[in-house]
Amino acid sequence: MTTMNNLRVGTAFDAHQIEAGKPCWIAGILHDGVDGCEGHSDGDVVAHAVVDAVLSAAGLGDLGSFVGVGRPAYDGVSGVALLRELRELIDAKGAVILNVSAQLIAQSPKMGPVRAAAEAALTEALGAPVSVSATTTDHMGFTGSGQGRAAIATALVDVGGV
Amino acid sequence: MTTMNNLRVGTAFDAHQIEAGKPCWIAGILHDGVDGCEGHSDGDVVAHAVVDAVLSAAGLGDLGSFVGVGRPAYDGVSGVALLRELRELIDAKGAVILNVSAQLIAQSPKMGPVRAAAEAALTEALGAPVSVSATTTDHMGFTGSGQGRAAIATALVDVGGV
Amino acid sequence: MTTMNNLRVGTAFDAHQIEAGKPCWIAGILHDGVDGCEGHSDGDVVAHAVVDAVLSAAGLGDLGSFVGVGRPAYDGVSGVALLRELRELIDAKGAVILNVSAQLIAQSPKMGPVRAAAEAALTEALGAPVSVSATTTDHMGFTGSGQGRAAIATALVDVGGV
Ligand SMILES: [Zn+2]
Ligand SMILES: [Zn+2]
Ligand SMILES: [Zn+2]
Repeated sequence: MTTMNNLRVGTAFDAHQIEAGKPCWIAGILHDGVDGCEGHSDGDVVAHAVVDAVLSAAGLGDLGSFVGVGRPAYDGVSGVALLRELRELIDAKGAVILNVSAQLIAQSPKMGPVRAAAEAALTEALGAPVSVSATTTDHMGFTGSGQGRAAIATALVDVGGV
Repeated sequence: MTTMNNLRVGTAFDAHQIEAGKPCWIAGILHDGVDGCEGHSDGDVVAHAVVDAVLSAAGLGDLGSFVGVGRPAYDGVSGVALLRELRELIDAKGAVILNVSAQLIAQSPKMGPVRAAAEAALTEALGAPVSVSATTTDHMGFTGSGQGRAAIATALVDVGGV
Repeated sequence: MTTMNNLRVGTAFDAHQIEAGKPCWIAGILHDGVDGCEGHSDGDVVAHAVVDAVLSAAGLGDLGSFVGVGRPAYDGVSGVALLRELRELIDAKGAVILNVSAQLIAQSPKMGPVRAAAEAALTEALGAPVSVSATTTDHMGFTGSGQGRAAIATALVDVGGV
């Protein structure tokens, strides 16, 4: 039965270095003319934080255990593909994601003009509302210098009494 | 109808550089003898994180879209004024803020002695319970060196089935 | 009465410098062959974030007010001991912790192999489900250079209508 006592929160942070010349996939969409993020995956720091937050809320491990670091099947995997796979896992467990809130912490790309598109892409892939926002560190630290990007996410999940 | 399925979480981070000589408004109160934060607004990094977290939970965009960056009406706007405006927006949408938890990440000001006053100021402005805490980065990074301050916040909102 | 309107979220960040030669207690367990964290306590950055997140959700202050900084009774106190004491306070207030999600942000120790043990230790001490995950900052910033470690946590608490 669905009751309040089955509600769980999950939170996560992720960070990647910026890699010159790599396509920039952030929050499920491609940002033209901006360098992307390093990593075996597409480096979508926002999507990764979303996945980790949902897994933590559901008590199902973390991104490392989910994809199995080093598994060739996940080389270059997109953030949206990870969200689709996560959705299948959550469905199979009988859990329901109420929503996820994610924020990009970076000097680039500008999320304002594409925020609605990013929210639509992540929401469609996850099958639950995903809010996307963005902030900078006002040119301070590794996200302010252009060395890297970070993201935070928090998820609310009904674990369904299972 | 108000049901569990209308609950949403939102999370946000904010950071500002410290500006010598500027009054220090943090968490809705003035801290004497401490340099404030840069920004077109009063630089209240805690209040900004609270606003962003609530907006994200309610699916209503972020601080940038809320105040419209560069709008003269928001030059020097106080954190408390932003919370009051946010409260009107949330009320108009038929949503209810259950609470917000915010934490200052900075070497100064000391929040312990004024924590209750800060919670009262933000709670009164938002019309919902706001918890305020504080931590340092143990003299590491841009918040530890005195270059800047950061804050995180998480909000729980009943979006009211709308 | 327990109703949805009594739900509260809390969030917290903590950071400590790494201290050569100190035992490394992180997330309630001892990590062999790894330097620990500075601090009057055992420096368990994950446990501290958990305590702060729960206190903030419950509106009961923060880690500083909870342990009273500088009280000799807390010199070297373990993270697990803090969680046990927190559990008594929460019980006494008639509140119920639904869950806590915590994430270590550090280059070391590796949490994957011991994640289940860490979750069991923290969950047993707190009397509520604690999820533990871990990420790095990809060698960036103070957690990436090996200077320190950080953690974030978010808690969901039913404050029980009190
Ligand atoms: Zn990642
Ligand atoms: Zn701000
Ligand atoms: Zn600590």
